[in-house]
Amino acid sequence: MQSLSVDLGERSYPIYIDGGLLASPNLRKLLAAGVPGKQVALFTNECVDALYGECVRDALSDFTVDTFVMGDGEKYKSMQTYSAAMDFLMQHRHNRTTCLVALGGGVVGDLTGFTAATFQRGVSFIQIPTTLLAQVDSSVGGKTAINHPAGKNMVGAFYQPRAVIIDSSTLNSLPPREYAAGLAEVVKYGVIADADFFAWLEVNVDALGRRDPEVLKQVIARSCACKADIVSQDEREGGVRAILNFGHTFAHAIESLTGYDSWLHGEAVAIGMVMAARFSETLNLLPPGQADRLAELLRSFDLPVKLTNQISVEDMVEVMGMDKKAADGQMRFVVSAGYGRAHLTTDFDRQALVKVLAEFC
Amino acid sequence: MQSLSVDLGERSYPIYIDGGLLASPNLRKLLAAGVPGKQVALFTNECVDALYGECVRDALSDFTVDTFVMGDGEKYKSMQTYSAAMDFLMQHRHNRTTCLVALGGGVVGDLTGFTAATFQRGVSFIQIPTTLLAQVDSSVGGKTAINHPAGKNMVGAFYQPRAVIIDSSTLNSLPPREYAAGLAEVVKYGVIADADFFAWLEVNVDALGRRDPEVLKQVIARSCACKADIVSQDEREGGVRAILNFGHTFAHAIESLTGYDSWLHGEAVAIGMVMAARFSETLNLLPPGQADRLAELLRSFDLPVKLTNQISVEDMVEVMGMDKKAADGQMRFVVSAGYGRAHLTTDFDRQALVKVLAEFC
Repeated sequence: MQSLSVDLGERSYPIYIDGGLLASPNLRKLLAAGVPGKQVALFTNECVDALYGECVRDALSDFTVDTFVMGDGEKYKSMQTYSAAMDFLMQHRHNRTTCLVALGGGVVGDLTGFTAATFQRGVSFIQIPTTLLAQVDSSVGGKTAINHPAGKNMVGAFYQPRAVIIDSSTLNSLPPREYAAGLAEVVKYGVIADADFFAWLEVNVDALGRRDPEVLKQVIARSCACKADIVSQDEREGGVRAILNFGHTFAHAIESLTGYDSWLHGEAVAIGMVMAARFSETLNLLPPGQADRLAELLRSFDLPVKLTNQISVEDMVEVMGMDKKAADGQMRFVVSAGYGRAHLTTDFDRQALVKVLAEFC
Repeated sequence: MQSLSVDLGERSYPIYIDGGLLASPNLRKLLAAGVPGKQVALFTNECVDALYGECVRDALSDFTVDTFVMGDGEKYKSMQTYSAAMDFLMQHRHNRTTCLVALGGGVVGDLTGFTAATFQRGVSFIQIPTTLLAQVDSSVGGKTAINHPAGKNMVGAFYQPRAVIIDSSTLNSLPPREYAAGLAEVVKYGVIADADFFAWLEVNVDALGRRDPEVLKQVIARSCACKADIVSQDEREGGVRAILNFGHTFAHAIESLTGYDSWLHGEAVAIGMVMAARFSETLNLLPPGQADRLAELLRSFDLPVKLTNQISVEDMVEVMGMDKKAADGQMRFVVSAGYGRAHLTTDFDRQALVKVLAEFC
C-alpha cells in the first residue's frame, strides 16, 4: 500500500492507494481511524452499492451504518439530492459525531462532502473514490459542491476529508467511457505541472488501454502527488490552485449548455483542454503543434476533442461570463506556456477567444 | 461610535455600535471597507426593507446592488428560501467577488450567512442586524444556518462576516415582543459569564423598558463584548463556546415541537433558561432561589417563563435527544453553577430531567 499526505496543518490527511484495498483487512483499520463516533452514513449510488457496498459495510461492522443511495449521474448532484440527504441524516438521527463515507465517483464525493460540510455545521467524512476521475482529482483537495441549473459547482464549500482510500482495482469494473474521462484529468497534470509525466503517458498508452494494474497504481499516485502539492500550497484557490482549472472554463460551459447529460465531466474537460491549448497557441504562449499533440494523446484514450453538439459561439461566451472563475465580471482563463507550466490570464483579445470557439462550435 | 473586535486571526472583524448609524455618513465608509468588488446583494425582509432598505442602498450607491427580499419570520429560514437565494444570485450574475449584506434580524442574518458561506464556495458578507436579538447574539460569531423541519439550525456552517454594523436606534421600530425576545439573550450573558451585568440589568429594568438610548448602547456593547470574548476563545464550538447554549437545548425542543410559530426564539430561550436554572438547582449546582430570581427578571421584561402550549414530557425528551448538542447519542446540558459561571454536563440522573420537564409541561 502506498500512502501520500495532503499537508494542510491541522486539516492534513492521508491518501492510501492499493489494488484490492476494499477487499483487504486493511480497510477496517483505515476506516476506523477516521470515524470519530459510533455512527456512519454511507453515501453511494445504486450501481456502486451493488458492487462494493457490502465490502464497506462489512469493514464498518463495529459501527451503526445507514446507507443513503442516490441516483447515478451528474444530474443527481443537485439541490434536491442535497435536501434529501439532509432529510435522511435527520430521519436516522445522526448527530455531530457521525461520519459520512463517500463511496463512488465525483458526483457521490462532491455531494457527500458538501453534505458533511454543512450538516450540523460540519461533520467528518471519508472519501472512497471508485472512478478514475474521482481517484486522481475530485476526492483530493476538499472542493465540495452541488450544481445549479445555471452553472456547475455553484453551491459548495472548501471542506477536507479525514482520509482518502483508493482501491485501484475498482477501475476494472469501470465502463470504458468513465475510465477514459478520468484519463483526461490525468493528462491535465502532465500539461500544467509535469511535462515528464505527459511524455510517460504517451509511452504508456497501451498499458493504460488494457488497465495494467501496476501502471494504474503509478498513474494514480503521481496524479494525487501533483494535486496534493498544488492544494497544499493554496487550499482555497487564492492563487496557484487555479491552474487545476486548465480547460475547465470551457468544459463547464459545455456541460452547462448540454444540460450535464451529453458529456461526462472528463469528456468535457478533454474538449476544453484542447480549446485551452489552442487558445494558448493563439496567444503565442504555447508553441504551435502542442494543441495537436495534446489532442492526439486524448484521442488515443478514446476521448472526444471537439464538440458534436449544436452549441453556438454566442452561447459559450455568455455562459463562460457566468462561470465562477470570472472575477468581478472579467473573464479569466488558465493558459499553458509550455507543458508543465500554466498560469491564469485576463490579458487577452476577446476576438482571439471567439476565433478559437468558432473552430470548435 | 463604539467599536469592538472579534479576534480570530485572519478572520478577525470589527463590530461598530452607535445610535443612528444607518442614517449617518459613516455607513458609506463602513460598508465600502467590507465590499471587495463592485457587486452587492442586499438580503432583507419585506418589513425591514420598508424601514431601512433605502438608507442602505443609498450608502451603497457606488456599487451595483440587487435586493433579495424574503418573508418575515422563522419559517422562512428554510431550504426553500436558501434555494431561492441561490437562484437569485445566479440570475443576477453575481460572482466570487460579490458581497452579501444582511439587513434584518436573526433569520435574515443566518440565512444570508449560510448563503454567503456556500455560494461559489464562499463570498464575503456583512451583518447589519436590526433586532436586539441579532445585535447582541446571532450577528456575532459566525454561526450561520437554516432550519430543518426536524430541528433548528441543522444545516449550516461556521463562517465569519467581514463586519457587523449595529444601529441601536433601529430598536425604536421593533415590536415589543421582538424587543423582549432580544433581552432574553442579554440576560443569558449575565447568567453564564457576567454576574455584575445581571445585577446591573435588575437595576435598569425601567430604563430598558422605555428603551433609553444610552442604556441600549451599553447593553449591546456589553453583550457583544461577552460574546466576542467567548467566540475568540473557541470559534467552532469545541469547548467553552457551548455555554452560549444555556437554555437552548430546552428552547430548541420547544420551538421544534411548536413548529417555530408559537414562540419567538428569544421567548423560547427565556422559558428554556428558567428550565435550565431549575435543572441546575435540582443537580445542586445553583443555589435554591436563583431560578426564581432569573424568572422574575425575565418576567419584568414581559418574557414568558413557562409553557402554555400542549407539549408532553415524552415529546420534549424525544426531541432533545435529536438536538445537535447531543454528542454521540448522549444528552448534554449547559448548567449554571452560580451566576457568571456555566459549564456543559452529561453527568445527571435522567429522572431529575424528567422531573423538571414535568414542572413546565
